[in-house]
Amino acid sequence: MATLRIPAHVPAPSEDAEQLHKAFEGWGTNEQLIIDILAHRNAAQRNSIRKAYREAYGKDLLKSLDEELSSDFERAVVLFTLDPAERDAYLANESTKKFTSSNWILMEIACTRSSYELFNVRRAYHARYKKSLEEDVAYHTKGDHRKLLVPLVSAFRYEGEEVNMTLAKSEAKILHEKISHKHYSDEEVIRIVTTRSKAQLNATLNQYNTAFGNDINKDLEAGSDDEFLKLLRAAIQCLTVPEKYFEKVLREAIVGLGTDEWALTRVVTTRAEVDMVRIKEEYHRRNSVTLEKAIAGDTSGDYEKMLLALVGAGDV
Amino acid sequence: MATLRIPAHVPAPSEDAEQLHKAFEGWGTNEQLIIDILAHRNAAQRNSIRKAYREAYGKDLLKSLDEELSSDFERAVVLFTLDPAERDAYLANESTKKFTSSNWILMEIACTRSSYELFNVRRAYHARYKKSLEEDVAYHTKGDHRKLLVPLVSAFRYEGEEVNMTLAKSEAKILHEKISHKHYSDEEVIRIVTTRSKAQLNATLNQYNTAFGNDINKDLEAGSDDEFLKLLRAAIQCLTVPEKYFEKVLREAIVGLGTDEWALTRVVTTRAEVDMVRIKEEYHRRNSVTLEKAIAGDTSGDYEKMLLALVGAGDV
Repeated sequence: MATLRIPAHVPAPSEDAEQLHKAFEGWGTNEQLIIDILAHRNAAQRNSIRKAYREAYGKDLLKSLDEELSSDFERAVVLFTLDPAERDAYLANESTKKFTSSNWILMEIACTRSSYELFNVRRAYHARYKKSLEEDVAYHTKGDHRKLLVPLVSAFRYEGEEVNMTLAKSEAKILHEKISHKHYSDEEVIRIVTTRSKAQLNATLNQYNTAFGNDINKDLEAGSDDEFLKLLRAAIQCLTVPEKYFEKVLREAIVGLGTDEWALTRVVTTRAEVDMVRIKEEYHRRNSVTLEKAIAGDTSGDYEKMLLALVGAGDV
Repeated sequence: MATLRIPAHVPAPSEDAEQLHKAFEGWGTNEQLIIDILAHRNAAQRNSIRKAYREAYGKDLLKSLDEELSSDFERAVVLFTLDPAERDAYLANESTKKFTSSNWILMEIACTRSSYELFNVRRAYHARYKKSLEEDVAYHTKGDHRKLLVPLVSAFRYEGEEVNMTLAKSEAKILHEKISHKHYSDEEVIRIVTTRSKAQLNATLNQYNTAFGNDINKDLEAGSDDEFLKLLRAAIQCLTVPEKYFEKVLREAIVGLGTDEWALTRVVTTRAEVDMVRIKEEYHRRNSVTLEKAIAGDTSGDYEKMLLALVGAGDV
């Protein structure tokens, strides 16, 4: 469930575009007005506003936002305003670039989006970067990371709920055998994790737990602390219990000295319209403090206001 | 260019459905009527006929064809009548089954269809088999064949004509280095062949030829005659000169003792609506006999009539 809150009466896109244009005009920018509009419209509505803005002022709204806003607030507003598929394509492309490289974000996008959403990211990637997503991921990675990431971003998993229990048992056995021999990047492990439907994979992991007495991620943790193993564990978590994965990313972004604003912004802007209600519950349960309170304690100014609006704090 | 020939005046789908129903009625089946209709309608028209047939007679046209026809003629009519994406999903599924297993057909479908066509095959596969294509391919294969086939069937290649010549040069060098060390299934070779756009791959192979004095497939041939190497060569051919690949499949199906009806039927039914004109030119050039004549010499009866209709012989 989404935390995005949309007012009962939504103005026409042309009206929203006009208000935004006013917010940019004159001395200083009206940040609160920008938040009031953009943080309270769904993806279709934001696309319509962008269209109306371009028609009225001959300019991409994102370009105006980029000129008027700055730093973390800018990134939060721009990322949220983007269409979800375009936004993921943008984040994925950043993740294949030298200085913003991140195998984690690639894995996160590949494993927590639906099959059709992921395909739309690949289409948006073609349109924007004149290349394919898997081509950049394969070029950017190597060895075990490539073996895992390329099939993850190329997958078009079956999304039905049907489960084959015989297969679940036999593949749980394969996973256990490979893991107990520390063959974590064995092609069979990769095959099972990257091609099976989420329902089937879940059945296999339940079977693993039942037959061998341990959660698979516990057995993988016992293995070692190398980067590939961490990524594999996170992929399994994203595919089966995404809210726990996102809770942990938020926790690590907020807790401790300093804040990881990029991670915080990414999770809030990509999940506000999807499953942020579930992530907030998980956060509260795990940290004994609400996500709103944690965000308010760690951020400030317009950036804080934007994030709080997206996680559903306060009035519409 | 397609060899499929559609009459100037096409009857309404309901009329075609009625004629087909008549062709099935009474003692014996009117095969010529079936050919006259189904071998002269495009994919959209055939889909409309199936819909009209189901509405009028409460039965899938394919089921009636299956009951009324037999052997090679049946397979040709049924395969051609299927929607292209459904047909490919069907052929791919057969290819992952024990007794009809074929890595070649999987490769052929992955490499000769456009990116969107291949995606539609994956969608049709979900709908019909309640599984994903890549999941069955990965489960059915292993080792080097899996390393090549899974990314091939999962690819969504960029389709623009843009070419990066610097990249073409550097990747030609990588290919040459790996091949000269006989590392044919090296992950870099697989990456380049399975993820680059067809235009980019073509530029890389031209660069290979220019810089190292040989066609890449010549260098691969020198390697050895193992099954993986043959499949890799065929994939490269399918990605760059599909008409030459299909010409060879047809030649091997026709020439010599006996006929490989499955291969002949597959190529004719899948290419009649796409690039059969080009394949026929290539066939004539290479064999000094027209494809029509070769088919007529090697097949007979209704099966022959169906194939000849699809490759554009005779009147509409």
